[in-house]
Amino acid sequence: MRVLGIDPGLRNLGWGVIDVDGSRLRHVANGVCTSAGPELAPRLLSLHHQLTEVLRLYAPEVAAVELTFVNKDAVATLKLGQARAIALLVPAQFGLEVGEYAPNKVKKTVVGVGHADKTQVLHMVKMQLKGAEIHGPDAADALAIAICHAHHARVPVLREMRA
Amino acid sequence: MRVLGIDPGLRNLGWGVIDVDGSRLRHVANGVCTSAGPELAPRLLSLHHQLTEVLRLYAPEVAAVELTFVNKDAVATLKLGQARAIALLVPAQFGLEVGEYAPNKVKKTVVGVGHADKTQVLHMVKMQLKGAEIHGPDAADALAIAICHAHHARVPVLREMRA
Repeated sequence: MRVLGIDPGLRNLGWGVIDVDGSRLRHVANGVCTSAGPELAPRLLSLHHQLTEVLRLYAPEVAAVELTFVNKDAVATLKLGQARAIALLVPAQFGLEVGEYAPNKVKKTVVGVGHADKTQVLHMVKMQLKGAEIHGPDAADALAIAICHAHHARVPVLREMRA
Repeated sequence: MRVLGIDPGLRNLGWGVIDVDGSRLRHVANGVCTSAGPELAPRLLSLHHQLTEVLRLYAPEVAAVELTFVNKDAVATLKLGQARAIALLVPAQFGLEVGEYAPNKVKKTVVGVGHADKTQVLHMVKMQLKGAEIHGPDAADALAIAICHAHHARVPVLREMRA
């Protein structure tokens, strides 16, 4: 199973693709889609283009997106919502189911504790995806989301095997 | 000039199309794209499909979207951001420039005061678009946004004529 993880952001939208074979994980690719400028519509269009290209190139079978909330700032929350819409829309346009995970669940799955910092996440992602060259913290978070989805999507299969 | 106005919302996304010829406005069509269900990705995909169909059918030349902020509730703000992303993305995918207007500016342009209620907006939209059958308050707001854009986009043309 090939999994795409997405860490949504308007300026930096991290993505990571892994292959899952039973309990084995293999790194495929990771990167960051970026957008800048004062006009929102062309930024969203650019993110849509870039993420579409990622799905075309790597053909993932499932996708997972981080379910982030920003409470302190309505403007930041609105921007995040706009970036998340692109992160949810593009995989849906390719017919993929899109899982959503709270950041604490991602950290708990990958690091073992819900309040791990970015350095710990990066370290554990590198441990689990040997040899992967990781393009910054947003790409590392995206790979962590993909690992989280691989883990939780695997559970029902294991249960079936035991039954 | 054919103008598409959009009042973004995740459950109800209002849209309205008008033709502008100098100071004359003519109603073309209006309606509401709707989405429901627990999963966000298919809802955004559905709104994307519906709004794409509106652009295909009515071929507007410019678009305008209401620039709303929700401060009280981060979850509502995030949802609104996701709906706004679709409202901005689809016209951009058709190569249209997308204007953004604050609700107060829309009301001030259409009704004359910034704090008009929905009934006043509906009344003035009906006055300015004779014979239009309006499909509810979200469609009325969308037509008001289109009228607002028509007005503000016209100003430079009038200035050129005077020069």
